[in-house]
Amino acid sequence: MDKIDELLTRRVDKIYPSKKALEKVLRSGKKLKLYLGVDPTGTNLHLGHVIPLFKLKEFMDLGHEVIFLVGDFTALCGDPSGHEETRRGLTPAEIEKNMATYKNQASKILGSSRIKIKYNAEWLSRLTLKEVIDLASHFTVQQNIERDLFQKRLKKNKPIYLHEFLYPLLQGYDSVAMNVDLEVGGSDQTFNMLTGRTLQKIYHQKEKFVLTVKMMLGTDGKTMSKTSGNTINILDKPADKFGKIMSIIDKMIIHYFEFGTHLALQLIKELEKDLKSGKIHPMELKKRLAFEIVKTHHSEKEARQAQEEFEQVFQKRKMPAKMAVFKTKKREWGIIDLLIKASLAASRGEAKRLIQQGGVKINKSKIKDQKLKIKLKDGTVIRVGKKRFLKIRLVKPN
Amino acid sequence: MDKIDELLTRRVDKIYPSKKALEKVLRSGKKLKLYLGVDPTGTNLHLGHVIPLFKLKEFMDLGHEVIFLVGDFTALCGDPSGHEETRRGLTPAEIEKNMATYKNQASKILGSSRIKIKYNAEWLSRLTLKEVIDLASHFTVQQNIERDLFQKRLKKNKPIYLHEFLYPLLQGYDSVAMNVDLEVGGSDQTFNMLTGRTLQKIYHQKEKFVLTVKMMLGTDGKTMSKTSGNTINILDKPADKFGKIMSIIDKMIIHYFEFGTHLALQLIKELEKDLKSGKIHPMELKKRLAFEIVKTHHSEKEARQAQEEFEQVFQKRKMPAKMAVFKTKKREWGIIDLLIKASLAASRGEAKRLIQQGGVKINKSKIKDQKLKIKLKDGTVIRVGKKRFLKIRLVKPN
Repeated sequence: MDKIDELLTRRVDKIYPSKKALEKVLRSGKKLKLYLGVDPTGTNLHLGHVIPLFKLKEFMDLGHEVIFLVGDFTALCGDPSGHEETRRGLTPAEIEKNMATYKNQASKILGSSRIKIKYNAEWLSRLTLKEVIDLASHFTVQQNIERDLFQKRLKKNKPIYLHEFLYPLLQGYDSVAMNVDLEVGGSDQTFNMLTGRTLQKIYHQKEKFVLTVKMMLGTDGKTMSKTSGNTINILDKPADKFGKIMSIIDKMIIHYFEFGTHLALQLIKELEKDLKSGKIHPMELKKRLAFEIVKTHHSEKEARQAQEEFEQVFQKRKMPAKMAVFKTKKREWGIIDLLIKASLAASRGEAKRLIQQGGVKINKSKIKDQKLKIKLKDGTVIRVGKKRFLKIRLVKPN
Repeated sequence: MDKIDELLTRRVDKIYPSKKALEKVLRSGKKLKLYLGVDPTGTNLHLGHVIPLFKLKEFMDLGHEVIFLVGDFTALCGDPSGHEETRRGLTPAEIEKNMATYKNQASKILGSSRIKIKYNAEWLSRLTLKEVIDLASHFTVQQNIERDLFQKRLKKNKPIYLHEFLYPLLQGYDSVAMNVDLEVGGSDQTFNMLTGRTLQKIYHQKEKFVLTVKMMLGTDGKTMSKTSGNTINILDKPADKFGKIMSIIDKMIIHYFEFGTHLALQLIKELEKDLKSGKIHPMELKKRLAFEIVKTHHSEKEARQAQEEFEQVFQKRKMPAKMAVFKTKKREWGIIDLLIKASLAASRGEAKRLIQQGGVKINKSKIKDQKLKIKLKDGTVIRVGKKRFLKIRLVKPN
């Protein structure tokens, strides 16, 4: 598997007109002019948002001409793609603020100064009504209304505003204005990107390629979205980011390696094998993952620090998934009696000493009073020192 | 019934928001700024096209400020109203050519130089995409798709192009750009005019009145349209126009008086009464009608000439509506025998003489050969001299 193979498959959803056609051009050695357009609609990018940037970087690393297009004009209109409510257009002040943080975040992925940044207000703000009418005359209402998001709205009697039908024309015109050979974007952008493909045929008799990338999933394996709280944000601090990555469910580990790191696919496949065979513990592999992702967004040094910090905190706070159980019918206990009966202390003296030293916790509260009477609940955890845990299991009196 | 009453009822279909509201303003003595917009899509106006111009003239005669708006920009886009096929936009050259003839024809109705002529390219060609998006954001796809013409297209799987949804916004923006109080138009323009009413509320917090006029019917009482061949054109020569008006079916006479002339409604009602009571013959009333219409478009002198010319030609060519009938079972006749048997000639000698003098016609062909054998059809008309007609009725042999 060479770099072109990886370019054409990793994180890729679909290629228009076909993977074969694009591969032929890439193997011919021709250098393409391509772009990714992003409307600065929010300030906080998450891992899912930057998947197309990885693809952009791969093209850049192969020597193609790459443009990062800031949709400062299209953001005024508002892309309806994937939205069940009409999006309000942003104000110029909001757009300017968002743009600054976007560029900052994108540079964490792209790294290089070789990338060209353009702004679509450059041409869209100059478009005349006559030109807009001409753009519009190539597309039908029926093509637009078929889109899932609009079908949903029609069924729910929610309004579709006319400017939402104009949006794809504007994004499509970006391709014409820059006369590109290829556009990269999320699969949710397919309709808009194919509009640009049609317009490139009409205005420049050119077959623009469209490459859509897959959606990265959230930490819980579901669709990644801010509202679901399952995102990892580019601007998260390294330590927080490390911790969040450690919290992903195990079956997401390989997905996160493939989507969120630059590690070669072949290496990832080997890691997957080792994970399945039990040669690597999931926890260890997640540490590697978290390290790689933090390194990608920040630096190796920051990744190392984040890991160290995580390990310390983790070891302090950790409760084992499985712990010993103490079964009892009695709910009210003196703390000393409980420690002895549960074999956590060998004598009243040891029990008292452990409490004095601050080494005894009920759930997460440190016990200071040796005469404390406590009411146990089923599942209460008693902890002694760093490593000894005991879970209470209340049994019904017979 | 005063002039305001006539203004609010004659040729009027609907008034938005209500007749009462407009009447109140008109009776207050306030002078309104109003307009009629016409896209120069064709070169040949017919009587139906100029109905809104009559309304404009009535407003003008009452001292209101009247604008005749030439849709030189909107014609580039193409109004879908009432059309089951997408209309192609016109080229600037076509628009310029059509405009010249439009103004010429409109002036035949409006007569006066008090009318202001404006062109909507003045503001529409300067509209920015940002402004177009803003206009579009006030209207929904659902509002557009409900329109009859689009429902028909959807059912027939005919395309609706996106620019066809933009058209009403452009026409609507005319109201904003000129900041008018009222718009006059055909009832087929209701959707576009109400779009302008909505925009006037949004942009100028003004309640624009909309007055729609009824459609004038064709010479045969059906919808007037070029393709049906039942139109009378403004540019028709006076004599042709006079003749076409004489050809309208009788039950259209009063409709044509009301829609096509400036005669007061009260007088028209009296003429209607006289027609019903038989005091005036329909033919005589049509002559009066034709005279009035030609006078309106041309001049009294030309109307008089047209009438004289018509009467001459009419008397030469006329076939009476009712004529004597000659019943016969025999189909093949010698012409001489036929003339005698049908009592059109008293003798073979007279019959021969009539033929020699060119006074005998079968249908409209003059008979020259005394020995001619003719095959009769049911309905064949034999004419002798100027006034004697006979219709053949073929009877089945028993």
